[in-house]
Order: sequence, then structure tokens, then C-alpha cells
Amino acid sequence: MTKDTENDPRLTPLAASLPSTVPFIGPEAQERAKGTPFKARLGANESVFGPSPSTIRAMRQAAKDVWMYGDPESHDLRMALAVHHVVNPDEIVVGAGIDGLLDSLVRLTVTDGTPVVTSAGAYPTFNYHVTGYGGTIHTVNYTADFEDPDHLIAKAREVGAKLIYLSNPDNPMGTYHTAATIQRMIESLPKGCLLVLDEAYVELAPKGTAPAINTKDSRVIRMRTFSKGYGMAGARIGYAVGHKTLISAFNRVRNHFGMGRISQVGALTALEDQAWLEDVCEQVEESRQRLYEIATENGLEAIPSATNFVAIDCGKDGAFARTVLTALGELGVFVRMPFVAPQDRCVRISCGTKKDMALVAKALPKALAQAQAAVDTQKV
Amino acid sequence: MTKDTENDPRLTPLAASLPSTVPFIGPEAQERAKGTPFKARLGANESVFGPSPSTIRAMRQAAKDVWMYGDPESHDLRMALAVHHVVNPDEIVVGAGIDGLLDSLVRLTVTDGTPVVTSAGAYPTFNYHVTGYGGTIHTVNYTADFEDPDHLIAKAREVGAKLIYLSNPDNPMGTYHTAATIQRMIESLPKGCLLVLDEAYVELAPKGTAPAINTKDSRVIRMRTFSKGYGMAGARIGYAVGHKTLISAFNRVRNHFGMGRISQVGALTALEDQAWLEDVCEQVEESRQRLYEIATENGLEAIPSATNFVAIDCGKDGAFARTVLTALGELGVFVRMPFVAPQDRCVRISCGTKKDMALVAKALPKALAQAQAAVDTQKV
Repeated sequence: MTKDTENDPRLTPLAASLPSTVPFIGPEAQERAKGTPFKARLGANESVFGPSPSTIRAMRQAAKDVWMYGDPESHDLRMALAVHHVVNPDEIVVGAGIDGLLDSLVRLTVTDGTPVVTSAGAYPTFNYHVTGYGGTIHTVNYTADFEDPDHLIAKAREVGAKLIYLSNPDNPMGTYHTAATIQRMIESLPKGCLLVLDEAYVELAPKGTAPAINTKDSRVIRMRTFSKGYGMAGARIGYAVGHKTLISAFNRVRNHFGMGRISQVGALTALEDQAWLEDVCEQVEESRQRLYEIATENGLEAIPSATNFVAIDCGKDGAFARTVLTALGELGVFVRMPFVAPQDRCVRISCGTKKDMALVAKALPKALAQAQAAVDTQKV
Repeated sequence: MTKDTENDPRLTPLAASLPSTVPFIGPEAQERAKGTPFKARLGANESVFGPSPSTIRAMRQAAKDVWMYGDPESHDLRMALAVHHVVNPDEIVVGAGIDGLLDSLVRLTVTDGTPVVTSAGAYPTFNYHVTGYGGTIHTVNYTADFEDPDHLIAKAREVGAKLIYLSNPDNPMGTYHTAATIQRMIESLPKGCLLVLDEAYVELAPKGTAPAINTKDSRVIRMRTFSKGYGMAGARIGYAVGHKTLISAFNRVRNHFGMGRISQVGALTALEDQAWLEDVCEQVEESRQRLYEIATENGLEAIPSATNFVAIDCGKDGAFARTVLTALGELGVFVRMPFVAPQDRCVRISCGTKKDMALVAKALPKALAQAQAAVDTQKV
């Protein structure tokens, strides 16, 4: 028994049963372990293009006001989001990123043994919360690197799921379904089942990827964030949009004074600067194209992406891709990879600046060669 | 049944049972309701003296880096806190304010019917979390405006409490116990009972108010914050210090990427600037003295305070104090008051600038006169 799995005797049985593993190790921890900083930070799908200059200015300006708690209702931001999405303010709840909102949502709906459906290899932080509240996770496989709405629905029907989690576009593969496909999925949800539609990357996807938001429809809750397209991962601002009855329930459990003041100001400014978001989309598209090229240059296939990252198929199994990933890290390029086969044949590289892409272009062939050498050594 | 108490059918029985009331209404919501901003913001025990200039500079500087997630381990801040408190880094967990840490702690230890002990009228957000996880709250009364360690211990013994919550110095009364008294309380804890020692205001209390931190002692967990003395309420940074087995359990449930990047940088800088904290303590002391004087000028008694607020006894019952509070609000002075009798005979006024104090000095006699007039009218 390691230190971390020792239990304080006062833990609840559920808390005592939880694993001490965490979904992600941060790049900073990896840098501390290897003793040198990464040259390219392309593993967490952050936006290297940053928030808009006006957003940075607004946050700098707000720093002096940090002695005041942020508005616990995130009123101004919710009002602006309501206008932006043409919904009512009471159909939006703001939280500490989608991670924080998933925590609250799972807490509200999942208890011991509650069945929940997701794709094997989809967002592990959702699973972390489901496990954390005692739920039971049922998975279906990806189909050709796409999350599979039909299989998710069928599994939900089979196990009587209360929640289905789907990200569109998908993380970690970058694939996406059309609005029509998602809407059909919503229409075919079993009675009593809520679709948790994680649209963290939707601002970066082709226009029209998101089905129209209909807050009268209590079968779906939409999760959005300022962490990706808006370039504010470190500010921890996400929001959920849905039926007001479900949305209002968040107020029973959320950390009311949990939203930072600088973050609220920043998000409001970021939302107003849609021109910047469009500019980011163009830069992301350019970087995606470059990542496709880099894959081709190395004789590999890239999965076409609707996000700010590209999964590159390393052409062999998960062990091989993990070796490539490790080698990339040693060469100064922080990336991640899918956790589950066969998607774990890929490494997932975030879009970046031209300089970032040049580093990838230089490091990938070396990393592939190192991984191949490791395979050859094992064969001997 | 109002809108807010309608239930989504997918809520867990516990979530469905939770009240929709929240511990505190923010000053911004009150300003929106009355249509004018407050002239003095003295209701949330924020530090009007702000964070240190170096902290503001560091946060302004960090705004451009907000595209990156904050380090999920808050490594640098934890290291600095470990040095500051002479403990090991794995005996500290950083979270989104004490509110966020109380959420995690209660989640880890409280389930349906778990008995918990606190003082009637103590911090309502702790109770919010206990109720939120299905625990059962048992209360004891204050004794002469002090939380009563002996009564808390006796009640914990009687009900088999898993947690006792105590804030020292106390909020909302501002009174405090000596380190020796708190240490005696720790020594007399029933077996299996954890003391949640909320020391949010301890930096503002007389030196030596906090018992020595002994992380080998698993009977107590200490809660600290950058929201009060350090003047960073809007940055949402608190930390808990305790035995490593309990502290490590937070990693099973906390929102790992929940700590903002700008906030982490700010807190680290604030911690380094202890001279600023000392300066704030002096300004707080000056303001406390002024609040005592204002009480005297109005023929009222102030409760001696070890915090950055003063509870002023309005000399009558809770209804009277509530009328004073409302009148103060209408005169532009945001304050709060204790929720429970007989402490609710007081209004609680945060320390402030000389200008803030001048506003209080001017508004309080008017508010008292209005409240007295209301009483006189009712008598007729």
C-alpha cells in the first residue's frame, strides 16, 4: 500500500474507495521531473494565440480590484452570454471551467450505482467525476475515430443511463458530427436520459456544427468554455446552457463565490471581441494544415480535425505511440495522446505558432526514429 | 411551489431535497435591486486596503499568460506555503478559497446523516456544504458572543460528530480564543472527530492566536485564505494544512485544473510581501478603533474584534438590527449581520478606509434614528 492509498479513517466509504490517480499530469510537473522546460507547449489544447489584447487589458485593469469578491451571480457575464446565445439568463450557469460544471452536474444527478454512458477513451475528467460520486460508467467504442451516437444511445437504453456524455467536436480525436446528427441523437434519447453535450471546441469547428440551442428542451445540457477558442484556460471560466429547471439546480450545490473577479471581467471582454475569435480560428486552421503536412512528411496519417489540435496516427500500436510521445517530450515538445486502443495509436498535438510547428516538424521524425529503434531493439 | 424549487426529475434524491436558498446575496445583486451602487463596501469583510502593489503588478504581468492552465499542483505556491508554515508540501492543499476547500472536505467525510457540530450562527457556507452532502447539523449556542469550545466538544461527544467547525477568530462576531484554549480543545476532541479550524482571519488577530501547526496531529485541519488579510478575495485562493493522509485525499475529488494561473502567481507574490500584511494589520487596527468610537458615539457597544470587521450591538433585537442594516444599505453603506439570535442584535461592519469610516459615522446615527422611528410607529 503506497502513501497515497492510505485512508483517513474519517473518509466516507465512497471517498475511501476512490483511486488516487488523476486524469492528467500537468506540463509543469513534467518539466519539474525532467528538469528542463518544454520548448513547445502543445499538450493541453490551450490556445497559444492567447486571449484578445482587449481581454488582456481588461484583466490587467481588474487586477487592482481583486480585493473584492467576484459577483457570485456572474451577472454581467451571464447577461452577455444570454444575448450572445439568444436565451434567458436563468438558462445559463457560469462555473470554474467545464471541469467544474461537470462536477456540479454529476453531483446533482449521480449517486451510488447511477448508470452513465460515455465513449471508451473520451474525456477522463467526466469519468473522474462520475466515479467520484459513485456512478457506474458504461462505455462504447469509437467507430472509425468518431464517437458513435447510435451506439451511445443503444447502450444508454440498455443500461438505463441517466447521462450520456458526448463531446462535439470530439476530444481527443478532433472528429465531429454535424448539427443534424447531434439533433437526431437528441431526438432519440431514451426517456429520462440527459445528453451532456461538451462543446468545448465548438467555436473552432466549421460554422453550423452546433445544433441550435433550444433551452425548452430539457433532454440536453450544453457545456461551453473560454479555455479553448477564447484562449483563457488559466482563467477558469466555463458555462452551461440548458433548461432553467436543471440550470437553477446548480445554485443548490455550486461554490457561489467561486468565480474570480478578474476572470469574469476577462470573459466578458473576450465575448465582446468576436473578431479576435475569428482571427484565432484562421490561425488554428493554418496550424491544422501544417500538422496535416507534417504527418504526411513523415509518412503518417492525420485525423481531420475540427478543433485546435490534430491526432496523428503513428501507424503502429499504443506502445509505439507512447514511445513517440515520450521522445517528443524529451525533445522539448509537450503533447498528449488518447488513453484507449485503437485511438492510442495516435499522438495529439495542439495547434501552435509557426515556431511551435517548426519544432514539431523537427522533433517528430527524430521521435519516430527513436521509437522505431526501440521496437527494433526489442525484436533482436 | 416557486420556479426555483421545481425539480428536474433526474436529480438525485439528495439534490432534489436541497433548498434553493443561498448563504449570501452579493453586494452587486443588492446594487442591481436598488438601482444605485454602494458608497462603502463593508459587508463581506474584504480588505479595502487591497493586495500589495507587488501582488497587483505580478497579476497584471501574468494576464498575458492566461492562455495556459494554471499548474494543477499549485506547486510553487505550495512550496512557498510549506516554507512559510514549516510543514511539508504534501501537508498543504490549495483550493478555490476556504469555501471550495470546505466543499471538498465535507464531500470526503460527510454522507447521509453524518453528524456534524457547529455553533448556531457560525459560517453558513460550511452548513451549506454539510446539508449539500446530506449531513446532519447539530448546533450549540455562542456563550457571550464567543464560540464555545467546551459546548462544541460536549455536543460532538453526545452526537458522535465526525466534524466540528470552529472559526478562530470568529466570524461573524470577531471574538477569538487564545492558542492555549484551542490547543486544549484539540486535546479534548472525541476519538474520530476532526476539528475544522477556520483561520480565515488569523493574520489579523493578535500574534500567537493560532496554535502551532502540527501536521502530525490528524485531529485538526487548518483552513487559511488569501481573501482577508492578503486582500485577494476576488482571486479565490485558500489552502488547508493538515495530516498528509487527509490532505492527499483532496486529490481524489478536487478540480485539479481549477486554480487560476493569475491567482497562483498573485498569491505567491502576496505571501512573499509580509511587510504589506503587517501594514494592513495596522490599518485594520486603526479602523477597528474608529468603529469602536463610532459605536460609542451612538451610545452603542462594539464587540472587541480580532478581525477586519466589528460587530456593533444595536442594543435591541434582531428585527431592530435588520432595520438598521436596511437603512444603512439605503444610505449607501453595504454591511451584513449575524443570522441567529442573540448575535443578530448586531450589525457587522468591515474595516475600511478613513473615507469609508466617515460614511459609517454619518450613516449610522441616521439608520438608528430610522429604525427607532419604525419601532415607534409600530407601537402607535
